[in-house]
Amino acid sequence: MGRSMVKTKQINHKKNQEDYSLSTNNYSLPSGFVKTQYYTFASPPDELELESGRKLGPITLAYEIYGRLNKQKSNAILILHALTGDAHAAGIHEEDGQTGWWDNMIGPGKAFDTEKYFIICSNVLGGCKGSTGPASINPHTGKPYGLEFPLITVKDMVNAQRCLIDHLEINKLLAAAGGSMGGMQALQWVVSYPERVCSVIPVATTITHSPQQIAFNEVGRQAIMADPNWNDGDYYGKDLPAKGLSVARMVGHITYMSDVSMNEKFGRRFKNEKKPFKFSPEFEVERYLQYRGDNFISRFDPNSYLYTTKAIDYFDLANGNVLYAVLKGIRAPFLVISFKSDWLYPPYQSQEIARACKLAGIEATYCELNSNYGHDAFLVEVDEQTHMIRHFLKKVSHSNKVSEEHAE
Amino acid sequence: MGRSMVKTKQINHKKNQEDYSLSTNNYSLPSGFVKTQYYTFASPPDELELESGRKLGPITLAYEIYGRLNKQKSNAILILHALTGDAHAAGIHEEDGQTGWWDNMIGPGKAFDTEKYFIICSNVLGGCKGSTGPASINPHTGKPYGLEFPLITVKDMVNAQRCLIDHLEINKLLAAAGGSMGGMQALQWVVSYPERVCSVIPVATTITHSPQQIAFNEVGRQAIMADPNWNDGDYYGKDLPAKGLSVARMVGHITYMSDVSMNEKFGRRFKNEKKPFKFSPEFEVERYLQYRGDNFISRFDPNSYLYTTKAIDYFDLANGNVLYAVLKGIRAPFLVISFKSDWLYPPYQSQEIARACKLAGIEATYCELNSNYGHDAFLVEVDEQTHMIRHFLKKVSHSNKVSEEHAE
Repeated sequence: MGRSMVKTKQINHKKNQEDYSLSTNNYSLPSGFVKTQYYTFASPPDELELESGRKLGPITLAYEIYGRLNKQKSNAILILHALTGDAHAAGIHEEDGQTGWWDNMIGPGKAFDTEKYFIICSNVLGGCKGSTGPASINPHTGKPYGLEFPLITVKDMVNAQRCLIDHLEINKLLAAAGGSMGGMQALQWVVSYPERVCSVIPVATTITHSPQQIAFNEVGRQAIMADPNWNDGDYYGKDLPAKGLSVARMVGHITYMSDVSMNEKFGRRFKNEKKPFKFSPEFEVERYLQYRGDNFISRFDPNSYLYTTKAIDYFDLANGNVLYAVLKGIRAPFLVISFKSDWLYPPYQSQEIARACKLAGIEATYCELNSNYGHDAFLVEVDEQTHMIRHFLKKVSHSNKVSEEHAE
Repeated sequence: MGRSMVKTKQINHKKNQEDYSLSTNNYSLPSGFVKTQYYTFASPPDELELESGRKLGPITLAYEIYGRLNKQKSNAILILHALTGDAHAAGIHEEDGQTGWWDNMIGPGKAFDTEKYFIICSNVLGGCKGSTGPASINPHTGKPYGLEFPLITVKDMVNAQRCLIDHLEINKLLAAAGGSMGGMQALQWVVSYPERVCSVIPVATTITHSPQQIAFNEVGRQAIMADPNWNDGDYYGKDLPAKGLSVARMVGHITYMSDVSMNEKFGRRFKNEKKPFKFSPEFEVERYLQYRGDNFISRFDPNSYLYTTKAIDYFDLANGNVLYAVLKGIRAPFLVISFKSDWLYPPYQSQEIARACKLAGIEATYCELNSNYGHDAFLVEVDEQTHMIRHFLKKVSHSNKVSEEHAE
């Protein structure tokens, strides 16, 4: 079983200076490869109290680090991942050779420059890529949690990350940055811990899910729960609800692309040029979706899909208040980025963030980038994002007296 | 079992003058109620040849008529229904008391004025509301067709309707009109039979499905086929693939609404005001989708959903040519209507139709209506559509010397 399989290693890595004393090539290992590390905390009786009131522990977070922490510990940037992402944001993983999901943005000379900054990325609580989630062993039963796992929220994800940041002995993050669900976490970080974040970069995200966004997630959940193999979440060691998860992923992929990008990528082409007059996927777009759906089964836990989609559906940064009131007192500047063709997290949702910042007296730069890639743009539109982010981080570093020189 | 249940009556209604000699209240029955009628044709050895090359027969089409055919038989308008519609477009059905799906547009003094025009609406070939489809009995086996039913296309639907129009002894339709899949049929009518259509009213439709539109349909099909009860389409008399069909319908409903209309209708309200921290649908939008999904099971055949979605995915009016070349020689004027918030069949697709008409020298009026209702707008935005259509039909009647007086 590879790193990305559905399991949670319950490894209690002792805090270890080696963990973040990095090689000069700015990846975690002298080989140039990176590895995932694990931090376990909140062991009973000191469980983490969740937003729902339930307690959870022990908790393991999988995380990766790139670059070098400076002596002042002032150059740390936390990267937050999207719905189905993981801790492996950059570099080549030593176990499976996979490239990180934001590798085009994180590394030497890139937007998040590992020659200047110390980058941390952790898999979220409730996930299935090494962090504690529904597939983890419930210490009370010795079996996977399944639906016994408590519902978690974006605030819970952030609270767990805070424990990791404490563990790394970082008092204040230079930036919290992420796209999509990662952007929600970045926003939650600055609201929950305003004194611990120097700046925020929410990309292609929202302060709360609209009913349309909830609806798409609910279709995915219903598809999973309609699969008889789902078995009320108790399928570990048995047949997976593969077909349901595949349908959920197909819906997701439609929302990640745009009408234009789908047209450019697939058009109305058939695999075999003429109308096949059958139901098996023959349009190229059908074959692509089926491929992405089937592929997802081997790398994501269906229950984690339920839990993380629910977390973002519950996300409501203002929590019934006006947003600018919630942001009042925050001094961290914001760089808010959206993409014109993103109809899943449309620009108007990012504009709301920027507007609330202005009303709250927060320095905010709003940047709406031209792109045909839809929501996926945050993963592929590297050049303009790099330009914006590099410039923003330079300013933030300067304000916070972080040396512009290579990290020590 | 009511009218709308999944079954096909194989009734060969003899052509009967009473069928279209209508009461003064302009509905089919003196009671003011309407009834569905059935026309069977293409009985072996005279089966209908389909676009796929396969032959099908006998074929029954369910249809309804409203208003009175004039002596010249020049005031007939064919209304074409959308994906899950049926022949019951207007009035109150005598069997189940249901109101027709476009009743706000068809009737005395309405857009399609039954005091002036003779309105026909038929359930499509491949449907499940009385017309021959996959739930019908295969004469070769004595059992429901299931997947033995041949794949049909929009052109096949239109060819079958043409047999019905012949049967009603109508040489030329004053108009062919419909929204969504109905609009595709209207377009196909004028391309297949230019000499038999005086005018065309395609509403919220397209000349061909984009990959995004195909993708949404494919998700619905995969959800149905993922349901073990689907059993390769052989479920008649057994448990229905109800969960799969429900998920398919949920996806559909998201695409029929708009971001704005969902916000207005549901917001982020929970059934019980506070975060319920559970997976059962608690957001109002979730409960609505589940209701619509569950409700659909009792009135639509899952196999028909597969066949009709495939038909519209295959639809390609220009068939690889430039559209204006295909339209060349058509003399029927077009009234093309779209809605600003319709992102399933976005205005640009209607603009393409209008543009091609202009290039082909066809008189075309393009009308993009303001509405927040998304694709559903064609069913609910009555006032402006009524104004446009009434005016258009008046002009067409005049050009074709149809009396503006009440039908004789």
